[in-house]
Amino acid sequence: MRRHLLEVADLDRADATLVLDTTAQIEQALAGREVKKLPTLRGRTVVNLFFEDSTRTRISFELAAKRLSADVINFSAKGSSVSKGESLKDTALTLEAMGADGIVVRHPASGAPHRLAQWVQGSVVNAGDGTHEHPTQALLDAYTIRQRLGRLDGVRVAIVGDVLHSRVARSNVGLLTTLGAEVTLVAPPTLLPVGVESWPVAVSYDLDAVLPKADVVMMLRVQAERMNASFFPSAREYSRRYGLDGRRMAALTDDAIVMHPGPMNRGMEIAAEVADSPRSTIVAQVGNGVSVRMAVLYLLLGGAPE
Amino acid sequence: MRRHLLEVADLDRADATLVLDTTAQIEQALAGREVKKLPTLRGRTVVNLFFEDSTRTRISFELAAKRLSADVINFSAKGSSVSKGESLKDTALTLEAMGADGIVVRHPASGAPHRLAQWVQGSVVNAGDGTHEHPTQALLDAYTIRQRLGRLDGVRVAIVGDVLHSRVARSNVGLLTTLGAEVTLVAPPTLLPVGVESWPVAVSYDLDAVLPKADVVMMLRVQAERMNASFFPSAREYSRRYGLDGRRMAALTDDAIVMHPGPMNRGMEIAAEVADSPRSTIVAQVGNGVSVRMAVLYLLLGGAPE
Amino acid sequence: MRRHLLEVADLDRADATLVLDTTAQIEQALAGREVKKLPTLRGRTVVNLFFEDSTRTRISFELAAKRLSADVINFSAKGSSVSKGESLKDTALTLEAMGADGIVVRHPASGAPHRLAQWVQGSVVNAGDGTHEHPTQALLDAYTIRQRLGRLDGVRVAIVGDVLHSRVARSNVGLLTTLGAEVTLVAPPTLLPVGVESWPVAVSYDLDAVLPKADVVMMLRVQAERMNASFFPSAREYSRRYGLDGRRMAALTDDAIVMHPGPMNRGMEIAAEVADSPRSTIVAQVGNGVSVRMAVLYLLLGGAPE
Repeated sequence: MRRHLLEVADLDRADATLVLDTTAQIEQALAGREVKKLPTLRGRTVVNLFFEDSTRTRISFELAAKRLSADVINFSAKGSSVSKGESLKDTALTLEAMGADGIVVRHPASGAPHRLAQWVQGSVVNAGDGTHEHPTQALLDAYTIRQRLGRLDGVRVAIVGDVLHSRVARSNVGLLTTLGAEVTLVAPPTLLPVGVESWPVAVSYDLDAVLPKADVVMMLRVQAERMNASFFPSAREYSRRYGLDGRRMAALTDDAIVMHPGPMNRGMEIAAEVADSPRSTIVAQVGNGVSVRMAVLYLLLGGAPE
Repeated sequence: MRRHLLEVADLDRADATLVLDTTAQIEQALAGREVKKLPTLRGRTVVNLFFEDSTRTRISFELAAKRLSADVINFSAKGSSVSKGESLKDTALTLEAMGADGIVVRHPASGAPHRLAQWVQGSVVNAGDGTHEHPTQALLDAYTIRQRLGRLDGVRVAIVGDVLHSRVARSNVGLLTTLGAEVTLVAPPTLLPVGVESWPVAVSYDLDAVLPKADVVMMLRVQAERMNASFFPSAREYSRRYGLDGRRMAALTDDAIVMHPGPMNRGMEIAAEVADSPRSTIVAQVGNGVSVRMAVLYLLLGGAPE
Repeated sequence: MRRHLLEVADLDRADATLVLDTTAQIEQALAGREVKKLPTLRGRTVVNLFFEDSTRTRISFELAAKRLSADVINFSAKGSSVSKGESLKDTALTLEAMGADGIVVRHPASGAPHRLAQWVQGSVVNAGDGTHEHPTQALLDAYTIRQRLGRLDGVRVAIVGDVLHSRVARSNVGLLTTLGAEVTLVAPPTLLPVGVESWPVAVSYDLDAVLPKADVVMMLRVQAERMNASFFPSAREYSRRYGLDGRRMAALTDDAIVMHPGPMNRGMEIAAEVADSPRSTIVAQVGNGVSVRMAVLYLLLGGAPE
């Protein structure tokens, strides 16, 4: 394992498998305990450095760190010296000097975590940077698939929606193909990135054609403010073409699962009956998110086994 | 005890007495300790889910949980996925999946904690929902009365002010009458709820007539933005009719006490000389609030005795 | 030591030396530990009561308290009952009643921490009040000077910039002269306070004349919004006259150091090449800030030695 987790390319197949196996070990260790905490990171400090609001991801990392007994500092860039014009470098040096062992960073600019990592000795975990990457999301998705289907190798995954703006899609494509899955992107041409031809994926514009051959359907969140750029006449029209409703779900094979990184727009990219169906792993993904982040913090911050 | 504390009707007389007795035991246990914490909820997670600002109540619950050694997550709905349109249900399922053992919820909509409780396995504590209820406030008020007067049975309590919009009044009426107190509501007709005739209380429009017969005078907070709806010509006129000043306080019997849930508008519903007098239990209420909430979290989250 | 730390005048030479020596002991104690925490304040509650945004100072105190094993409550006055008109006194009484052992307060009004201290039994630490004082900043600066130069007695310190509005300057003048340093203020006349003639300092308007004789150059942060009041035609003109760039740094003696309380305006009061040079103690100051605040909390909250 490298010192930082900035993008899924930091993880080769062995590293990624180590994270997933460590996650499983942590879940097993906690299942047998009255007190659902491990003492591994006692005395270590994890800073949640969030330049974008994301309560869900912040809480997931905060819980992961606390369950490893670390001290957690929440640093929201709003109203901080950052808003007084402090540079990212000076913020980094400040956190470093204060003794941050791990910095979990969410930033609207792609690449910000990489720059941060150049300036600090502690470990940097990318919790989402612009439209670039969100590696722990991909890890928790991979963990969830393996948990439900028993394997990742050869699993056929359809990623559906606004791939263009999605760091979740980008990280999942990288990690899932590293782990042997076969990925198909399903999106209108206007919501696919330039250069997608060179990605190790298949591409389709036709959701109905893809569904019967998918083991996993991963729906992306529709961001209404970006729909304008997609040349869709309306959100409803988007939903009709690329949304997953009960009728479409019926086209899936018996064991196929439906995933979503949350938060969902029920009725838009995913119908309520799909979100709440037994195929849906959406709630399991949230729980696995805490465990996967515990594994990542544990491995990066070098906690020795008890 | 039920699994949740959503409204005071969840507590029968035995339950309510158990909470008050547990509070007393906790205060006694901590009084004898160098380290003012109990290990009871180590490894448990309590989430403060606040859809309305209330620093005072949030801190009280946060301290209560931390003094029981729980991990506390503060979730302010502002700037969260909730503001991106996530439903209350999905927020609930997310917190559940992350392993929240207790959810303390403050919400502007009456009934929101009840809906939340349908979706989660953990315990839900209502920390104030709309104009509906604020049960831990009523518990801390009952505890404070019992502490000062030695009993609740037969105690005569006057609740004074904007009863119409007050969840504090609603919860106190329910709990105090369950515990045997006799409650009189004192308010202008425009600030009494429709249907108050069916409540187990007396009603008066005349504060001066009620004061000499009260053991407890509980002043409600005036919310200036709601005074418009009360047909009062001015806040000053309201204060003249329903405010508690030194002259009125002199009409009380020797042992009568004055309560206020805070934050006070000094000089409006309560004069400074009253707030700072030995009759006032306002500061004691705040301290008791932490202890009562420790008892509630202890009983609901099923902490076994040490 | 007094019970509170409100201004540097609360510390005589013996007290100030005790804080610096305790800081050194704490750093030494932690250096030898696997778990970078001390159990000294377990069960104690420290409240960060911030009426002004200051993420950097808040985090420094939060880390200091957590490394002493205290429970920390962050109370931002925004959106709190304070914004509903609650008085500072009622906020103080509320925190006192909740069992706050220490209150760290940042307030835009000079003197607010002193008023707070009249109302509470716990210890109050001034974390910056208006343009008045910021005593822990002065302590960490003194600690840093002693660490780098081996002494404070007779050390020649130049404090450069907007002295008029700077609580950092005010606290440093008081503490450094108490500890035997010789302070020279360097600023345009419009940015010096009325009555500076009675301060125990020298005054100069000419940075270039002062630099060759300084052991320490302490640059103050330029606050753009206050430059208007200084009759400077432009920020650039200010920078040309009172900024520290590489050329000016070359005029310093070999051992002289450059300090800045942060956050910096790189290119304004300090050039990047100066901030990043080996003379700069800026990063060390941040780290020392956590240790000094640990010492202050330890001494004030009466933690007995292990």
